[in-house]
Amino acid sequence: MTRARRSRAGRRPGGASTRDDVLVAARAEFEERGYEGATVRAIAARANVDPAMIHHFFGNKENLFLVAMQINLDPAVITDAIRSSPRDEIGERAVRTFLAVWGDPKVRGPLLALLRSAMTHGAAAALLRQFVTRVLLSRIVVVFGDAPDAALRAEAMVSQLIGMAVLRFVVQVEPLASASEEEIVALIGPVIQQYVPPS
Amino acid sequence: MTRARRSRAGRRPGGASTRDDVLVAARAEFEERGYEGATVRAIAARANVDPAMIHHFFGNKENLFLVAMQINLDPAVITDAIRSSPRDEIGERAVRTFLAVWGDPKVRGPLLALLRSAMTHGAAAALLRQFVTRVLLSRIVVVFGDAPDAALRAEAMVSQLIGMAVLRFVVQVEPLASASEEEIVALIGPVIQQYVPPS
Repeated sequence: MTRARRSRAGRRPGGASTRDDVLVAARAEFEERGYEGATVRAIAARANVDPAMIHHFFGNKENLFLVAMQINLDPAVITDAIRSSPRDEIGERAVRTFLAVWGDPKVRGPLLALLRSAMTHGAAAALLRQFVTRVLLSRIVVVFGDAPDAALRAEAMVSQLIGMAVLRFVVQVEPLASASEEEIVALIGPVIQQYVPPS
Repeated sequence: MTRARRSRAGRRPGGASTRDDVLVAARAEFEERGYEGATVRAIAARANVDPAMIHHFFGNKENLFLVAMQINLDPAVITDAIRSSPRDEIGERAVRTFLAVWGDPKVRGPLLALLRSAMTHGAAAALLRQFVTRVLLSRIVVVFGDAPDAALRAEAMVSQLIGMAVLRFVVQVEPLASASEEEIVALIGPVIQQYVPPS
């Protein structure tokens, strides 16, 4: 089936509805095969377009995933902030960047939707799991270096940020829900700094 | 309506089905009025029993809430562990106790159900919010003393534990999902210890 669809004759030129077709195909592939199993090639085949067009419109698989999930966020924003930070300010920088991302209503809604789905649906949890692992953790681990527990440390840091988001934005427990960003950065930043391995 | 139901003539003696009626009434009251708004008196009226019988069967409102939510957990287990801990070991003790609670499958399932509902339903979120605030945070704050940010510190500590549970038990992201309890206690315990205010 996909082989037949992939034939050159069936491919259509780019355009608004083609872009939408790609997004529909991407959502279906990500859901069926998970973040890792989905390929740009298979998504292109399913949407009946040339893979090069997907690269042209969406860059890479990461960005396609975020657009398909309607999450208006470049993961490089977070990881660049951490990578460009002085080593002893990574904790503070991570909290500040994370709060800035969640503070953008265009990002927060879809992120909440993904987090909520992941709490209740196995397929969404698998997607989120793979995405967190491949996109966020793998980049933080590079900064954390070759400590044997670098991955666990990176994930512990991410888990503090997620727990904070759950209580502040989702369940809205006081005083965290109303605390200023500066209070939260000042309190949590130095604490999660302890997860950064000694260099 | 409730006044009429509350009349002595309508009250029935205790028994298995009466206990179930109390639980049904409790769930309805908690959902309609929230943890804080629900009273043992109103639940008794709704179930057409004497309030004293509820106290006899379930102790206090906290325990009635946990039984009604089918969460087989005495919150005193967590707060006593923290209160009885040497001040410089509170972080470690909190992680260890929290993992022990989640490690019990009889507790984990209902806790997951409550957390999941809270992520998607406003009424469940309100319940969880009030319960976390009134039952968990208020007791940790007592231990944390009268620092002006004691409540925020207590909640930051709880948020790290919740974020860890989300990634380890719900989304199951590695390496946190497979790490041993000892690894997690050793890594996260000393870090959240930093949330304990200086005495």
